Amino acid sequence: MKKLFGIGIGPGDRELITLKAYNLIRSCNYVFLPESKGESLAGKITSEFIKGKQVIELSFPMGADNQERYLQAAILINETLKDDETGVFLTLGDPMTYSTYAYLMKELIHLKVETETIPGITSYNAAAALLGLPITLKDESLYLADGNIDEEILKRIDSVCILKVSKNKQEIIDKLERNDFDYTYVKRCTQANQAVLYNKEEMLADTDYMSLIFARRN
Amino acid sequence: MKKLFGIGIGPGDRELITLKAYNLIRSCNYVFLPESKGESLAGKITSEFIKGKQVIELSFPMGADNQERYLQAAILINETLKDDETGVFLTLGDPMTYSTYAYLMKELIHLKVETETIPGITSYNAAAALLGLPITLKDESLYLADGNIDEEILKRIDSVCILKVSKNKQEIIDKLERNDFDYTYVKRCTQANQAVLYNKEEMLADTDYMSLIFARRN
Repeated sequence: MKKLFGIGIGPGDRELITLKAYNLIRSCNYVFLPESKGESLAGKITSEFIKGKQVIELSFPMGADNQERYLQAAILINETLKDDETGVFLTLGDPMTYSTYAYLMKELIHLKVETETIPGITSYNAAAALLGLPITLKDESLYLADGNIDEEILKRIDSVCILKVSKNKQEIIDKLERNDFDYTYVKRCTQANQAVLYNKEEMLADTDYMSLIFARRN
Repeated sequence: MKKLFGIGIGPGDRELITLKAYNLIRSCNYVFLPESKGESLAGKITSEFIKGKQVIELSFPMGADNQERYLQAAILINETLKDDETGVFLTLGDPMTYSTYAYLMKELIHLKVETETIPGITSYNAAAALLGLPITLKDESLYLADGNIDEEILKRIDSVCILKVSKNKQEIIDKLERNDFDYTYVKRCTQANQAVLYNKEEMLADTDYMSLIFARRN
């Protein structure tokens, strides 16, 4: 039976891929890569692992409504894989956390293609490790968001992580300051152009969309 | 200079360790393992990787106040590692998420021992992958807790994950039901004795402390 593995390849450092992901990539028949604006970051990060494999890029333009594209991608995967062949779909971070893969998986399930998901290291787990800051100690709790943050939740939480903060950074920072959080900005965590910013003006000036803010109560 | 790596080894499946963790374990001088009640689950999971290494177990009894033990463990690590030697401290899941390592790291930093943290796959990332359920889709948010959950946060969130639910399962389930969540119970995710329970009575009857509840709005 054909099978598609949705694989989290981690935040960027190629060594932050799991042994399971590595082995599945090496043994699969096809590698499917999400691509946006002619670039596949997942392909770049795993370039050494996918050498010699049959690679197919699937276009999911950033910011666009890709619902029809998920269906077309699922159809293409289904038609590409012959019986008893396997494919891997590589996704940054974790496939179940703010990932294109969750939408693609839904379409594959509709088409009755067998799927299996391999978890990956998230950017916020990597950021906390880099900063040496606990995400959660015993009896604490975390609030994870990717856009607007809810101030009522902020009042009741110990840690907060906001991914993709480029759109409304000022508003996020205002809310964090009003609620006594210490916050740090991490751009492209574990990637070649990683940066950690502690200064608010520098955070506001940066425009990289692969940035997050991690905050804890001070 | 001596250095201690705090390494997340993932939820249980030995293949859910990262290449970085694997390489550091293979190249280190000492492996430090947390042990409770004569057992080190981290040691069991990584048994094939730590073969032939010098292994030192550090006792952190479950449920006890281990503050003094963290300090003693840090002193032992500092005295064991000679100049330019490296040690790895292996911890289940992710070192910054409800882990003993965050407390140990603090003591090591006080002793001026260089540390570096390597993120790991969390049990809840693995559980969502197993269940085929998104943790977060675009514009959604997650609430992660390990004990009492706050009903005001529940009202405002899309997904919730509660780790170590053995103490107050009934209360957690009542709150989730009152707030229209669908919930699933995952015990020892990716370990040999993994179980997924959908039935409330079965969840309440189970007593394994390495269990979590993952819930999404229905």
